[in-house]
Amino acid sequence: MAGIIIAPRARIFHGHEWIYATEIKKTFGNPQPGDVITLKDFRDRPLGTAIYNPQSQIVARRFSRRKQDLNLDFFTRRIGQAIEHRKASGIDETLARLVWSESDGLPGLIVDRYGDHLSVQTLTLAMDLRKEIIRDALISLLNPASIVLRNDSPYRKAEGMEPGIEMLHGENPGSFQVRANDIIFEVDLYDGQKTGLYLDQFQAHAEVAALSKGKRVLDCFTNQGGFALACAKAGAAHVTAVDVSASACEAARKNAKLNGVEIDVIEHNVFDFLKHAKPEYDLIILDPPSFTRNKATLMDAMRGYKEIHLRSLKLLDKGGLLSTFCCSYHASRELYMENLVAASIDAKKSARLVMNHSQRADHPILISIPETGYLKGFTVEVIASR
Amino acid sequence: MAGIIIAPRARIFHGHEWIYATEIKKTFGNPQPGDVITLKDFRDRPLGTAIYNPQSQIVARRFSRRKQDLNLDFFTRRIGQAIEHRKASGIDETLARLVWSESDGLPGLIVDRYGDHLSVQTLTLAMDLRKEIIRDALISLLNPASIVLRNDSPYRKAEGMEPGIEMLHGENPGSFQVRANDIIFEVDLYDGQKTGLYLDQFQAHAEVAALSKGKRVLDCFTNQGGFALACAKAGAAHVTAVDVSASACEAARKNAKLNGVEIDVIEHNVFDFLKHAKPEYDLIILDPPSFTRNKATLMDAMRGYKEIHLRSLKLLDKGGLLSTFCCSYHASRELYMENLVAASIDAKKSARLVMNHSQRADHPILISIPETGYLKGFTVEVIASR
Repeated sequence: MAGIIIAPRARIFHGHEWIYATEIKKTFGNPQPGDVITLKDFRDRPLGTAIYNPQSQIVARRFSRRKQDLNLDFFTRRIGQAIEHRKASGIDETLARLVWSESDGLPGLIVDRYGDHLSVQTLTLAMDLRKEIIRDALISLLNPASIVLRNDSPYRKAEGMEPGIEMLHGENPGSFQVRANDIIFEVDLYDGQKTGLYLDQFQAHAEVAALSKGKRVLDCFTNQGGFALACAKAGAAHVTAVDVSASACEAARKNAKLNGVEIDVIEHNVFDFLKHAKPEYDLIILDPPSFTRNKATLMDAMRGYKEIHLRSLKLLDKGGLLSTFCCSYHASRELYMENLVAASIDAKKSARLVMNHSQRADHPILISIPETGYLKGFTVEVIASR
Repeated sequence: MAGIIIAPRARIFHGHEWIYATEIKKTFGNPQPGDVITLKDFRDRPLGTAIYNPQSQIVARRFSRRKQDLNLDFFTRRIGQAIEHRKASGIDETLARLVWSESDGLPGLIVDRYGDHLSVQTLTLAMDLRKEIIRDALISLLNPASIVLRNDSPYRKAEGMEPGIEMLHGENPGSFQVRANDIIFEVDLYDGQKTGLYLDQFQAHAEVAALSKGKRVLDCFTNQGGFALACAKAGAAHVTAVDVSASACEAARKNAKLNGVEIDVIEHNVFDFLKHAKPEYDLIILDPPSFTRNKATLMDAMRGYKEIHLRSLKLLDKGGLLSTFCCSYHASRELYMENLVAASIDAKKSARLVMNHSQRADHPILISIPETGYLKGFTVEVIASR
């Protein structure tokens, strides 16, 4: 088997599973892009098996500490373990991310289950080249009605692959309904704008909704209405949802109708909306799209957060709740909390931490790969105005 | 009213409520130790009301943004709000910390409820001088059978006060039983070694116990058996509990008997025990007493944690769980996680984060006073051994 010899002090010696170009001492046996390769340390000791792509910034991703082929037996076992983990976590595995890349020992493979249908992404070249084996493993494990290969992710460019959407199995199911937390959503895995729903937020939806009974709720960046619907279902007195995207607003309205709840959906830029909003809310939710995808723009993103934190806190009275979320790995939980504290001082409000939020268990966090823990959120209660 | 003028750039201008000696520009009106004083900034603008003790490192602690006396009406209102917060948080407020110092706007006052009896601590001079008013407020709000003033905390020395235990109301109830999470504990608020139970950990007890069914559990630093009892009640296959203290072991055994569960209680130094233990556990719990009370000894404490993390992880097989807790404010959640990751690399085990733990809601966290958030914990699952 071809492979690479890893230089000393590489991340892999500190528990990580990735190898960058600068960490390679030399390659041997002429490995080809997408190959399964052997890793060795500089004393020729084996370090396990990885997938290889010299076009990627991450040249190799280890997926086993032993010698291991990427065959049907392997995929069936690893995907099976991933499904078992979801079941053991107590989440509804019929609407969940069943496989999440590195976190499930399958770098670049993502499998989301929407009832009888699966949405799959192959974001590394090695996984992409083996999509038929993956399909066969999924059929043997889950017998889905259809599998959509939803490969329009920008991440594929980083691996030198073209974007595209195709059916991997069965017929395009078109638009259909799924149910989560007792809420119905309409999804379109093939033609929809996204790969589906933000499954990582479903736990937070339930946590925040549990605090919303009788409250006047403002859900900012509502997207398809996740938080707004959960709060309306949970007995909020009134729910306003804001999003700048017309199609998101349309989806949110449609989902509200589907669930028989009333939500006031407003198509508007959230920053502007908050600037001019009246102080008539008891619970404000901020769940923006990632303001940053890299370290370079982190400070800009934090300025954005500071502004929406400040404006939201100003709108809240004593007893008011703010639930705020950040899905960028680059903003640590500490940095994000510091941002909120700074905003609370500027807003002249003291606040108590009510709850920490995190990604749902179908997005497992490996402690040695910090990148796997990206979603953080806080709910705070205003306890005094100065 | 006497008071102090605060220098620019003091912590109080960044949302904190404490004033250190170095942050005082000048005092006026000759304030006396234990007095209620006025705070002003260097431009003579009022900043609220604080309690004063020049013998303490923290000379003043603000408790109101307005002009405010420490009278019966005030205590009744603030303590009442604190009790309401516990009720609203959904915890059993009959066995809970009802008042927690700064977090409830009553710096230095701690009130723990054990059924019909209260255990009170007055850890600042101003609160100590007003203990009769506090007693009256507590009687009017809760009508307790007794109130023990459990002032043997070492924190009192920092305020220049002597330690002591006395009855503030009613008769010493002696030893009696309380129930939490459906577990019975025997407590002695007057003669017991501690002020009572570690109420801050009761949520974590339940969270870890929910993962323990059918598992062979090792509870290290068991103290009065909190985690061990919860796991045994929740259906653990076998529970071993270790503590170096003979009286702790005795209490744990007594509590096991009270609850009709079997726990193997071993009086032993945990470090030694882990060194020689066999790999016969599915869930190991580490809940040591604070290894550090200050920054200076933090690195020593972290070495201690590294050792018990390493030894515990080595004992665990694939699928094994480790629940680990740190109650020192000085060790941040990040630092603590880094410690665990480093131990996992040395132990050659990969681990997945199962759950974040925190202090129960009867120990509220104020986001602008980071010291109020001190308890952190993680449960991780070993997913692969190298």
